[in-house]
Amino acid sequence: MQTRLLGTFEIDHQKLSQDLDVISHFDFDEPYIEFSCGYPWKSAMVWTSGGVLGDGVLSRYDNRQPCLPTANGRKLAYVREIIQNFFVVEHLLFARVVVMSNNVLVPHRDFLELEDKSKDEKVAHRLQVPLATSEDALFMEENVIYRMRVGEVWSLDATRLHSAAALTDHKRVHLILDFADTGKETRLVKFGEDRSAGIPDTNLAKRPALSAGDRDAILGMSKVIDMDNFKDILGIIIKKHYRNDAGEGFVWETMREISRLSGDPEIEAHANNLYEHYVLSRTD
Amino acid sequence: MQTRLLGTFEIDHQKLSQDLDVISHFDFDEPYIEFSCGYPWKSAMVWTSGGVLGDGVLSRYDNRQPCLPTANGRKLAYVREIIQNFFVVEHLLFARVVVMSNNVLVPHRDFLELEDKSKDEKVAHRLQVPLATSEDALFMEENVIYRMRVGEVWSLDATRLHSAAALTDHKRVHLILDFADTGKETRLVKFGEDRSAGIPDTNLAKRPALSAGDRDAILGMSKVIDMDNFKDILGIIIKKHYRNDAGEGFVWETMREISRLSGDPEIEAHANNLYEHYVLSRTD
Repeated sequence: MQTRLLGTFEIDHQKLSQDLDVISHFDFDEPYIEFSCGYPWKSAMVWTSGGVLGDGVLSRYDNRQPCLPTANGRKLAYVREIIQNFFVVEHLLFARVVVMSNNVLVPHRDFLELEDKSKDEKVAHRLQVPLATSEDALFMEENVIYRMRVGEVWSLDATRLHSAAALTDHKRVHLILDFADTGKETRLVKFGEDRSAGIPDTNLAKRPALSAGDRDAILGMSKVIDMDNFKDILGIIIKKHYRNDAGEGFVWETMREISRLSGDPEIEAHANNLYEHYVLSRTD
Repeated sequence: MQTRLLGTFEIDHQKLSQDLDVISHFDFDEPYIEFSCGYPWKSAMVWTSGGVLGDGVLSRYDNRQPCLPTANGRKLAYVREIIQNFFVVEHLLFARVVVMSNNVLVPHRDFLELEDKSKDEKVAHRLQVPLATSEDALFMEENVIYRMRVGEVWSLDATRLHSAAALTDHKRVHLILDFADTGKETRLVKFGEDRSAGIPDTNLAKRPALSAGDRDAILGMSKVIDMDNFKDILGIIIKKHYRNDAGEGFVWETMREISRLSGDPEIEAHANNLYEHYVLSRTD
């Protein structure tokens, strides 16, 4: 499994616009808030096991019932049409509408927290369907920065280090579909899959290299960091990674180096604990 | 009018706890989002002219109807009891429940945006009634940092440069009451007012002076600032002001100096425009 553009489908912009208007009035949850550096990442469950709305934390759902639209999902005619026409609902575990603006997510790996479930109930495939986006809505996988566009369907390898960014007030809205493990050959989509591997060149965000001077200035924040602004400084480093190529591992290496240089054992321990939590223990 | 502790009343903690539980399930608005550096400041209107819920932006309400509980307010038995027992509802324009966590507000002055309304419809007195708070929930007025505690009622001079901070995950919940201009002698509260002037010593947050080295390190962020992280850096400076005494005017002077030192005309202009908006044009 690798992150790749699965394919494209034709969007009905009028129907989409009606659903986006309904979505803008949703009462969102703010689960996984510890991942956000900026405005909280918001989520509304639209299909779940038994149609239960819940609180948006995936590990709290009982996945043994058939996947059905929630109270939110029943209000979204076009999203329902997209799900039923283009995806194999039989293997669907969750569908969520997620909204981001002025926010970057801490680079992390996923799926470990669901490991105590059986194969049929465990999220094995995560697909993303952008519903509203902009040029400042970006994704990161290791040292690759890319854009997903409306009309595209993406498959993500969430076990690799990844993050998302909305460096703008504009609300980026994605439909995220989580599927159970179906065995290698089972298809999850009902449209012609793009057989090209990986992330197309036209989706890549080209970045200039980070200069040595910029790197030193960023490390200089070791003299400013404290427990009150720790998350702000982590957010600044993540944003720099989205705009400048500073090599794989830049975010966590820089955050840990700043924390070490601060000379404050509490800050250094906090950085190492977060690194352990987001990067090391979340994968197998 | 000066910012001062108006008085105290005895809290019924059991009734308060029931209301706080109801409040935790409110569908909040996020008005004035441009003031937040961190998680958005959230507000739920509980009394308004005619009981209209609206969107939380005060200038959009028609204040000519009597002030009544909204759909939110009708769910809060104890807040209603507090308002009716301790305040002169006749002069009330708005009551709001506001929630903050992991956030600092940009230092600003208030009330200019309502100036086209007549005297009876215009907010002239802003009272704050803390419902849930912590030692890391702080307030700023010019170069004074202080705490408001549950059971206290405060009158704020919102025309002076002020800000609020919740340097914690803990949700700080306040009831804010806005009253019309009643003439000097009219009382707004129905309890014995504390006649001592200003902010009591026991409410002040003592801060060590900011060292010259810390000041230089903060100015060093001029080499890191860009349009993506502008608000993050503003937030870091505001937090430093809450924890260290660096003199009156520190926040805006430092933000404008960092922006000037960045050498980027877009950043410098942005800082000056924000200063104009938050500090100069919001007062008369």
